[in-house]
Amino acid sequence: MADLNDQIAPETELEEEDAYVLDRRGVAAVLYAVEIGDRDRLLALMEPMHSADIADLLEQINPFDRGRLIRLYDQEFDGEILSDLDENIREEVMAALRPETLAEAVRDMESDDVVDLVEDLDAPQQEAILEVLEDADRVAVEQALSYPEFSAGRLMQRETVMAPEHWTVGDAIDYMRDAEELPEQFYHVILVDPRMRPVANVTLGKIMGAPRTVPLKNIAEEMFQIIPVTQDEGDVAYAFNQYHLITAPVVDENERLVGVITIDDAMEVLDEEHEEDILRLAGVGEESSLSDRVVETTRQRLPWLAVNLVTAILASLVIAQFEATIAQYVALAVLMPIVASMGGNAGTQSLTVAVRALATKDLTSANVWRVIRREVLVGLINGVVFALVMGVVGIIWFGSPMLGVVIAVAMVVNLVVAGLAGTGIPVLLEKIGVDPALASGAFVTTVTDVVGFFAFLALAGAILL
Amino acid sequence: MADLNDQIAPETELEEEDAYVLDRRGVAAVLYAVEIGDRDRLLALMEPMHSADIADLLEQINPFDRGRLIRLYDQEFDGEILSDLDENIREEVMAALRPETLAEAVRDMESDDVVDLVEDLDAPQQEAILEVLEDADRVAVEQALSYPEFSAGRLMQRETVMAPEHWTVGDAIDYMRDAEELPEQFYHVILVDPRMRPVANVTLGKIMGAPRTVPLKNIAEEMFQIIPVTQDEGDVAYAFNQYHLITAPVVDENERLVGVITIDDAMEVLDEEHEEDILRLAGVGEESSLSDRVVETTRQRLPWLAVNLVTAILASLVIAQFEATIAQYVALAVLMPIVASMGGNAGTQSLTVAVRALATKDLTSANVWRVIRREVLVGLINGVVFALVMGVVGIIWFGSPMLGVVIAVAMVVNLVVAGLAGTGIPVLLEKIGVDPALASGAFVTTVTDVVGFFAFLALAGAILL
Repeated sequence: MADLNDQIAPETELEEEDAYVLDRRGVAAVLYAVEIGDRDRLLALMEPMHSADIADLLEQINPFDRGRLIRLYDQEFDGEILSDLDENIREEVMAALRPETLAEAVRDMESDDVVDLVEDLDAPQQEAILEVLEDADRVAVEQALSYPEFSAGRLMQRETVMAPEHWTVGDAIDYMRDAEELPEQFYHVILVDPRMRPVANVTLGKIMGAPRTVPLKNIAEEMFQIIPVTQDEGDVAYAFNQYHLITAPVVDENERLVGVITIDDAMEVLDEEHEEDILRLAGVGEESSLSDRVVETTRQRLPWLAVNLVTAILASLVIAQFEATIAQYVALAVLMPIVASMGGNAGTQSLTVAVRALATKDLTSANVWRVIRREVLVGLINGVVFALVMGVVGIIWFGSPMLGVVIAVAMVVNLVVAGLAGTGIPVLLEKIGVDPALASGAFVTTVTDVVGFFAFLALAGAILL
Repeated sequence: MADLNDQIAPETELEEEDAYVLDRRGVAAVLYAVEIGDRDRLLALMEPMHSADIADLLEQINPFDRGRLIRLYDQEFDGEILSDLDENIREEVMAALRPETLAEAVRDMESDDVVDLVEDLDAPQQEAILEVLEDADRVAVEQALSYPEFSAGRLMQRETVMAPEHWTVGDAIDYMRDAEELPEQFYHVILVDPRMRPVANVTLGKIMGAPRTVPLKNIAEEMFQIIPVTQDEGDVAYAFNQYHLITAPVVDENERLVGVITIDDAMEVLDEEHEEDILRLAGVGEESSLSDRVVETTRQRLPWLAVNLVTAILASLVIAQFEATIAQYVALAVLMPIVASMGGNAGTQSLTVAVRALATKDLTSANVWRVIRREVLVGLINGVVFALVMGVVGIIWFGSPMLGVVIAVAMVVNLVVAGLAGTGIPVLLEKIGVDPALASGAFVTTVTDVVGFFAFLALAGAILL
């Protein structure tokens, strides 16, 4: 309904898989309006768009057009667009807005969105934003900022709807109808004991369906998950996904209710955590984004390439030990990358499975040895299969049965090592408190490169010469 | 609160990062109860556990213990455990349950969970499950199964709470209070026109807070997203995340309301889609799971290793063209893997960013050329940096300035190509309808291997000899 494609270019027949993608024509129409400086046309085009789609549009156009669009659109710019924007162009956009527009946008935002907006800003900029807020909102934001970054305290909204545990459905309804202001979003009434500790959750649907005299306790949710305010946001997202939560109360160190987290915020965190894992596994800075500039992107990727260079040089040092062997038998130089490459790939397979299983808490002390044994066995079987294939290739290509044997044995050795390292290294890193997604790749590749080249060349030296 | 660790081993001081992980002692206590066949002890240990944690426990123990535990626990086994179980041990568990227990468990489940349970079963097994359902539920499940796999139709629940668009808050409240049965989970009332087309969404919270005379239309949600019943579940998850939806109505081809999807189901899909992407990028079958057996795991990974073998052999064929060069200058064999490895890594960085950006619909025709230009420039800058480093290494290690020049130039060439291929290949694959997460890796590595070896060895042949 609010799909940008339908709105901007209703004549385009969308294919199913293009759903929700900003289309070229829609973007072109907006840019044309910006080009000719036609404010009315721009507003007409943007009016039906969801703030999240406007944010995407701003991210996808170039900085020059972005600046012009913002200046032309200015007064219409609202807080939701700002919170939907990618963090690394947010500052640029905030700088381009007129101060009054920015103040207005910030005043419109929910307090948890303001937290998200200001937490990465420098102190003076943060100060400037907080100043425009009403007192109550400013206090709420400052309170949230006092909790650690990436904690439940930063994620929660402070406005909750709670009721004493002895209330009936009728009490709750009367209270809500009389309340001056209810939170923008709420789906449960939280029952609390006299010391403000949450004891149960009642969905609004259940309240709607029950007679007025029924005690709230009797229609409370069966399972009830409480989140400590200092809990890591990744664990919060995990709990929502694992226990199918819609909202969960947040408590302080005295187990008193201080706020509530709703599933849409947890879903966003889950999405970000996944994104980080994927980017870390690939050796890309987890903060990276498509709208980063060249310099920033280069700076993020260079360290990982440097680590890889060290790894590659280590492998080269191993090869250098066998220069004499290679000089006598150049076919070794031709075949040696195959063994290393297969090991690297098998290792990446094992490590990805292990890193994911650690992230989803499926790989624990209860099954770690079984998983390691499985990975080693898989490496062994795959090793034997590809050993046979490469043995035959070696014989046909270079006419040497012994060369076939050498590459076959090296292949088996390296794939077994790949299975072992691919599982063992992430598990060890997790144990010593290093993010396995971040560091496993470099270690595993080093192992499979070194073992691959060494096994192949040392065997060749012993058998062929 | 319902955390397994707290429940089973309350004496264990949990570190923050171990939140929600099944702990070794808890698992051991359960297995001990199974070992001595003490049913009461087992029930006492399992009673406080959430069904999702019981499912995790079953996944993490070995098949023999799993069978014994299920037989001892049998009657207590409920439908929620079954839906929380990993698909590939679900059949094993269902086979181990007594038929009456299984029937009871299935009858307890929500209809969308039954759909999830039976959709992968063979026809006779599916039939057996459906038979135990009540008529209304069976029809609901059969109807859902008539929609394509992975579509919104499979994901939605059919029970909705709707109201004519002209109703007031009071009308809605009276209707809900008088309703015989309301859905287990609902957070919105959907307003429909006389032809059953959804026109707006009203949250229960707003209804609770508004006077009885207010028309529902006046307190409806501003943005309102409608999901076609055939839409791919991945796009559904995207829409929930993009537009911050809690529930969304699902419509058939005549735009009539047929069901509703809630965010917890969308979050699960988002989680699965991410998982698939990560596993595909690593060349691991996306269906893979930690509880797969050795044979299954081997079968899933072998094809990707076979693809890699072809890639590696291609690279070797390139090297083979330069056997004479290498024979004259063995240092080339020592250094050549470095160029290929750096290219492979840089290519993986670019392709991961591109694959993710395609998945999140952030890489579109509006910015594809800008992104490609950026990746090439980043490759160029990183290439120059590492060319300088490797040039110096070449000179120091092998005492040959010309060797330094060769490796430096090859490095720049390969990193530029890596940036180009790493972005261009995923974009092309997406265009021709192939999942870029699945196939990009093999193509990009082939390109960087071939270009890396060729550039280095050909240059060396031309300059050094």
